[in-house]
Amino acid sequence: MKNISIKELKNHLGEEVTISGFVDNIRDLQWVQFVIIRDSTGKVQITIEKSEEKNHEMVDLISNLTLESTVKITGNLMDSPKVKLNGMEIIPATIEITSRSKEELPFHYKNLEGVNLDTRLDYRFIDLRSDKNVLLFQVQSSFIRYMREYLYHNNFTEIHTPKFIATASESGAEVFEVKYFDHKAYLAQSPQFYKQMAMASGFQKIFEVAPSFRAENSNTSRHATEFTSFDVEFSYIDSYQDVMNLEAEMLTYALSKLKEEYGEQVKEIFGEEIIVPTLPFPTMTLKEVYKELEKRYNYVVDDSEKTDLTTEAERLTYKLAQEKFNHEFMFIIDYPAEKRAFYHMRDKNGQLQGYDLIWKGVEITTGAQREHRYEEICKNAKNKGLDEDVKFYLEFFQYGCPPHGGFAIGVDRLTMLLLAIPSVKETQFLFRGPTRLKP
Amino acid sequence: MKNISIKELKNHLGEEVTISGFVDNIRDLQWVQFVIIRDSTGKVQITIEKSEEKNHEMVDLISNLTLESTVKITGNLMDSPKVKLNGMEIIPATIEITSRSKEELPFHYKNLEGVNLDTRLDYRFIDLRSDKNVLLFQVQSSFIRYMREYLYHNNFTEIHTPKFIATASESGAEVFEVKYFDHKAYLAQSPQFYKQMAMASGFQKIFEVAPSFRAENSNTSRHATEFTSFDVEFSYIDSYQDVMNLEAEMLTYALSKLKEEYGEQVKEIFGEEIIVPTLPFPTMTLKEVYKELEKRYNYVVDDSEKTDLTTEAERLTYKLAQEKFNHEFMFIIDYPAEKRAFYHMRDKNGQLQGYDLIWKGVEITTGAQREHRYEEICKNAKNKGLDEDVKFYLEFFQYGCPPHGGFAIGVDRLTMLLLAIPSVKETQFLFRGPTRLKP
Repeated sequence: MKNISIKELKNHLGEEVTISGFVDNIRDLQWVQFVIIRDSTGKVQITIEKSEEKNHEMVDLISNLTLESTVKITGNLMDSPKVKLNGMEIIPATIEITSRSKEELPFHYKNLEGVNLDTRLDYRFIDLRSDKNVLLFQVQSSFIRYMREYLYHNNFTEIHTPKFIATASESGAEVFEVKYFDHKAYLAQSPQFYKQMAMASGFQKIFEVAPSFRAENSNTSRHATEFTSFDVEFSYIDSYQDVMNLEAEMLTYALSKLKEEYGEQVKEIFGEEIIVPTLPFPTMTLKEVYKELEKRYNYVVDDSEKTDLTTEAERLTYKLAQEKFNHEFMFIIDYPAEKRAFYHMRDKNGQLQGYDLIWKGVEITTGAQREHRYEEICKNAKNKGLDEDVKFYLEFFQYGCPPHGGFAIGVDRLTMLLLAIPSVKETQFLFRGPTRLKP
Repeated sequence: MKNISIKELKNHLGEEVTISGFVDNIRDLQWVQFVIIRDSTGKVQITIEKSEEKNHEMVDLISNLTLESTVKITGNLMDSPKVKLNGMEIIPATIEITSRSKEELPFHYKNLEGVNLDTRLDYRFIDLRSDKNVLLFQVQSSFIRYMREYLYHNNFTEIHTPKFIATASESGAEVFEVKYFDHKAYLAQSPQFYKQMAMASGFQKIFEVAPSFRAENSNTSRHATEFTSFDVEFSYIDSYQDVMNLEAEMLTYALSKLKEEYGEQVKEIFGEEIIVPTLPFPTMTLKEVYKELEKRYNYVVDDSEKTDLTTEAERLTYKLAQEKFNHEFMFIIDYPAEKRAFYHMRDKNGQLQGYDLIWKGVEITTGAQREHRYEEICKNAKNKGLDEDVKFYLEFFQYGCPPHGGFAIGVDRLTMLLLAIPSVKETQFLFRGPTRLKP
């Protein structure tokens, strides 16, 4: 008989059903056994009357069963309003043990008091069993699904660019080196150059969802040596405003679909409200932000630090966005051009044609119109001393390349902010950092 | 004014429109200039009457314009049945050059006669401009889109597993080594172990689309050092038949959607018919296949080679599938267990619970029910001498792990077969092989 997922049981009341799942809990009372079965969609109660002769074998089986074992159960699904768990129970006819757990788990994943994060990450396959984590990764999957959906509707093509690259381009310092047969290769920090190559190739509207690799020896709540990047690039834009608009629309679409699908569960399990933003997102210049932070919150920093947002300024921006615009998002523009990547466009006054997007006080995106003019991009690369390293990239711009722009979003960071999780270590399926390569 | 994609122009006849694209062709005649503009959705003709006074500036601009430059054009879109190209033309009011191509391209991408593949790959950003390549990657994107769509409809969650791993697991020989701060890491050959970890974590139904890395120093039409793998794994199966059924249904769904979206274009540009397969896919044992190949095609090989399909046998299987089953696909089962990965389940007679899927004479998948029983998986690993290397993996099975199975499909290979392209070198956005790391 075909398995029914626990979420679907409500459509099968009164029927004989087969379900499979983990043994989440057992209450073995004098006259009755209650067994809670868990699959990835929910939980259901199995009730076994001890007095019934035909149940004796099952009663024995349950008495000897360890929690977290997996079972397959066939029985009658009864409408039982007295049962707290969804008002239903299964009266089993057969129970088959499909795997048996050891008695003691490495740690008690349902009660994390006193369990440090390292232990949880060491035994991530246990840690991920919690209701929170199962939901977290379903929500993450759907977040990406709906961002993709928005882009498909707008005729974007998903591409897959290589992660092996020949030179330690972009910055040099933070690139992983690979032994590549009898020479060396490096791991791409981002698909930036290849997204732009797609523009030079006339692909026009593309995106990619793929791992990026950063050899940063730092240990913060936001950084990892490997993370999933959601990258978008498209052609024939008039300015970086077009890029900001597309990103805002994409996020709004995805958040609205997410709220529909998971809003209630997220509120129940994470205590967080999914808020669908209004369009357009508010925009401020970097200068305006510092001015407002000083005025409103008495946050004063030295001018020398005002070339970017300090972490504290970033955090305060959430308060500012809420108070000034009743919004969770804020675009910040007019960063000093000299601090930004050479491939971001500057206008004729040297003004950077790019932006950062801050969500709930954390930067989630850097986006820009790119420099597509051959002479300008060569000049920019030379000014940064990169012209030799990025020679292969500069070639892309010699044979016609449309005006274009794009952005990247870190998926793990996005999930962290959506669900108010303290660190990306918990929003990556398996976190990777300078001292963490296992399991 | 907002750009309209060329494909959408048919809905704007008689209107003033703005389009952007590459200059695909210029015919500069005595009284008139015809300019063909190309974007990623199609081509359209621009017509400029030289005699009209107001056009003089534009006529000069076109006379000095190089092919493959990009332009933005505003003008009146006319219904012109006499125009071969879609029966319409634009009478421009303004033409803006947004980028200017050099006079000579590195090679003539519209006429590949005498151009070798290496030159094309060296200048891949030019090579990708052909109608064939633009369509190829749109089709590839949609193929993945529709496989995902099938899985979403069946409540699968997309996960992102790490590509950095701590030990050269699975086989050892073919793994890339990474300098990871002051120690070593390796690049995952496949997400196999982590897909299974997700099963042990109760994720139940997952998939992943991500790069896989193989340090094979071989140069065939089907191999690359990096490729996009479409990986699926799910729990509570009764046998590997469940895995085969899901894969067959997923491919059938995707091919039927693909035919709807791109059937005509694929036929026109690649000369290939997209055939929606019938369900179920035919299945034969490896033994039966060799017997039939001998009987039908007089293909005789030594018994010692019959532990797997030879490349020639694989090729002939296409003929066999067509003649015997009127089908392009064939599942092959009952491979000798000793030749297969230790994590594939064997039944109590030692019979492998796995399969290969052959499409058009090429293997596209290995799938299986996995060994989820702790004692058995430990025994299998030990028999292959891998027990120390895969210690972290064996742990997953100690605390309850549902019966599960899955498969992987190489996306580049799938595209190659769908469109009858000779090699994955042309179906990867940027091919990576032992001697190819650029651009």
